[in-house]
Amino acid sequence: MREFCEALFPGVVAEMLEDLEPSQAWEVLQSASASDQAEIFPFFSIHFQVELVDLIGRQPLSKIIENMSPDDRVDLLERMDPEHVESILRLVAQAERSDIRKLLSYPEDSAGSIMTTEYASLPVGITVQEALEQLRVQAPSRETIYYIYIIDKGRHLLGFVTLRELILEKPTNQLDSIIQRDVISVRVDDDQELVANEIARYDFIAIPVVDNQNRLVGIVTHDDAADVMQEEATEDAHLAGAVQPLEDGYIATPFFELAWKRGGWLVVLLGAASVTAQLLNYLETESTATWMVLFLPMVLASGGNAGSQSATLVIRALALDETKGKVSWIAWREIRIGVLLGTVLALLSFLVAHWMAGREASLIVTLTVFCVVAAGTLAGAMLPLALKRLGMDPAFMSTPLIAALSDMLGVFIYYGAASLAMNMISS
Amino acid sequence: MREFCEALFPGVVAEMLEDLEPSQAWEVLQSASASDQAEIFPFFSIHFQVELVDLIGRQPLSKIIENMSPDDRVDLLERMDPEHVESILRLVAQAERSDIRKLLSYPEDSAGSIMTTEYASLPVGITVQEALEQLRVQAPSRETIYYIYIIDKGRHLLGFVTLRELILEKPTNQLDSIIQRDVISVRVDDDQELVANEIARYDFIAIPVVDNQNRLVGIVTHDDAADVMQEEATEDAHLAGAVQPLEDGYIATPFFELAWKRGGWLVVLLGAASVTAQLLNYLETESTATWMVLFLPMVLASGGNAGSQSATLVIRALALDETKGKVSWIAWREIRIGVLLGTVLALLSFLVAHWMAGREASLIVTLTVFCVVAAGTLAGAMLPLALKRLGMDPAFMSTPLIAALSDMLGVFIYYGAASLAMNMISS
Repeated sequence: MREFCEALFPGVVAEMLEDLEPSQAWEVLQSASASDQAEIFPFFSIHFQVELVDLIGRQPLSKIIENMSPDDRVDLLERMDPEHVESILRLVAQAERSDIRKLLSYPEDSAGSIMTTEYASLPVGITVQEALEQLRVQAPSRETIYYIYIIDKGRHLLGFVTLRELILEKPTNQLDSIIQRDVISVRVDDDQELVANEIARYDFIAIPVVDNQNRLVGIVTHDDAADVMQEEATEDAHLAGAVQPLEDGYIATPFFELAWKRGGWLVVLLGAASVTAQLLNYLETESTATWMVLFLPMVLASGGNAGSQSATLVIRALALDETKGKVSWIAWREIRIGVLLGTVLALLSFLVAHWMAGREASLIVTLTVFCVVAAGTLAGAMLPLALKRLGMDPAFMSTPLIAALSDMLGVFIYYGAASLAMNMISS
Repeated sequence: MREFCEALFPGVVAEMLEDLEPSQAWEVLQSASASDQAEIFPFFSIHFQVELVDLIGRQPLSKIIENMSPDDRVDLLERMDPEHVESILRLVAQAERSDIRKLLSYPEDSAGSIMTTEYASLPVGITVQEALEQLRVQAPSRETIYYIYIIDKGRHLLGFVTLRELILEKPTNQLDSIIQRDVISVRVDDDQELVANEIARYDFIAIPVVDNQNRLVGIVTHDDAADVMQEEATEDAHLAGAVQPLEDGYIATPFFELAWKRGGWLVVLLGAASVTAQLLNYLETESTATWMVLFLPMVLASGGNAGSQSATLVIRALALDETKGKVSWIAWREIRIGVLLGTVLALLSFLVAHWMAGREASLIVTLTVFCVVAAGTLAGAMLPLALKRLGMDPAFMSTPLIAALSDMLGVFIYYGAASLAMNMISS
């Protein structure tokens, strides 16, 4: 058992153990050393980690926590019951404990909450040989030693060198000659999505995190950035489908939490639909033609679909940080594209309505489809941008919500156009 | 100008140049050396790269291509006009040329198409000192030297060592003692999404790519995996909103391409909506109550929303590879959740309908809402799984498409229930 945990790659061990019951997995893990346990632990899903934690005694758990890397253990502790965390922390060594408390104090989803404090750093004014010697001492406890940050006595970030440059340089040369001084860093309170985007943009293995005096406080590594990207993509996908984001993923989320996070949105959307019903009740009269109901789903869906498309595109562009300073450019393009798509769909629906219900029907349907598609397209693009401006999450504008708003507009235009036409005929 | 290109980080230079017109950007770039140009080039968006390529003469372009890393230049060449590629390749050095042709021959979205052939490798049976010496020779031309792959004379992959382990080990020790032999690799024809998921799962800096005889043919690095993850997330987000995926992103896609990729889906969805109109035409009779139209948008939206939620969740879980072997488990859970959510929504819509249109209306609306929510929930989860089984992209089941299918079902149940009730009353 011990050999199994030691010989294989920790990620592989974790994957195999996660197929067992938590109690069985812990039985196997128990035979490994605390440091092996700490290496395997972060590869479990956070959900499985929390289940395990409830099974493990405080003493062995505190040893695992001590041995885990700072960012991984903070991920876990953030998900545990606060009282349990307190009772564990009392058993954790003093130095680790204050580091944990500091990382736990950063706001959720900030650079501070995903960074690790175990970075490799070197002072200026030494030789390459001395740098390598110092690095060998640091290496065992550092998350990465491939990027080494250069700091002064006050821990201010001056630059960085890569291990590749270091081993290519002559040992007697001065370290200063290979320091890259235009270092790109993020602030400790920057959003985690921005951090992940910076790492992806510049192909970094790690990015330094500084405080507001440019003092190095941690690093975020590429693997954590990848986790953030997956997490944010999942969150946006769920929101787009009008599901309150599931932190643990679809499979691991318990039944009633899942029902709650879906049901809430369904009820809100049902509320919006009852407003549409009221609107219909108000606009429908004795004289409303019977053919109107036939094309009601069609005109409503057209507006909703066109709006969903532009909302989807703008929300994704916002997530990838593509839209900066382009709001009016986007509005102008969506107006033109709305008119184009509205014209095409209006012509097609003219044919359908003319064939099924004659001339009067076809004119009103055509007019309505054009208006809802053009208006829906523009509104779908502008609403997420407006939410962003208001400091809210643009992904909140889900496809079903856009469809619900578009339904109200559609009913209003459809029945409004019909009664207008009716009045013109009767006068 | 030359200093500007040399002193700053290539990613930063690229970002600043991309704000200029392509011709101005090339004027600045021209002052840099071919190797600096090749380092800056991949940080431009692929769209900007293609624009630049048309401005640059064949001679300087072939030099840039020669100096670019294999995976980056293949990304670019894949997007260029094939005749232009051929005329450039004639000017590229022989060794580079055959490497390019080989990489270009791998299917799009495969591991082979995103890998680089510039990996660091070492033989077995040498000392750590010898390993470091060989590595220093390889370093300048390799994409990463932090993972070094161990191969035999036939290039079969035997294991890997990390540079961290290498510099921590005593120089006189045998390399064999630190080789990690349970190496996780991907096949050259594996899908790029699987490659990215493996790198993210195990927190690797790079993953080796082997052919079907376990011979090392390349590596995929963490930064390319991050690009793939973003690309796939964008593709899935676009599909979810019924937009044919835009490869260049929302801002860079030209107007008519954008209109085409949205219009196509809108027309398909309009076609589905005309079927719904036909169905309504068939089911609506003289005796249909006038209140029925009031709740039509509400019952249709309820089914569509419930179905969209389950489709969204299942599609994202499929992308993250969470659903393996769980199809019947998912079906059973969605049946239960559909019944629960259907009951809640049915009760709420009962209140709305009873208040607005009386008892008869409320019973039919309640029954319909329950049926469409329960059926929509199950169908929304099962349709993406069925597409996956058929070898198609499950993300094809967009929210608007689910809504369109649900509309047909909703009309059928709503009017079916009404005429059934009518018959019962009249008999």
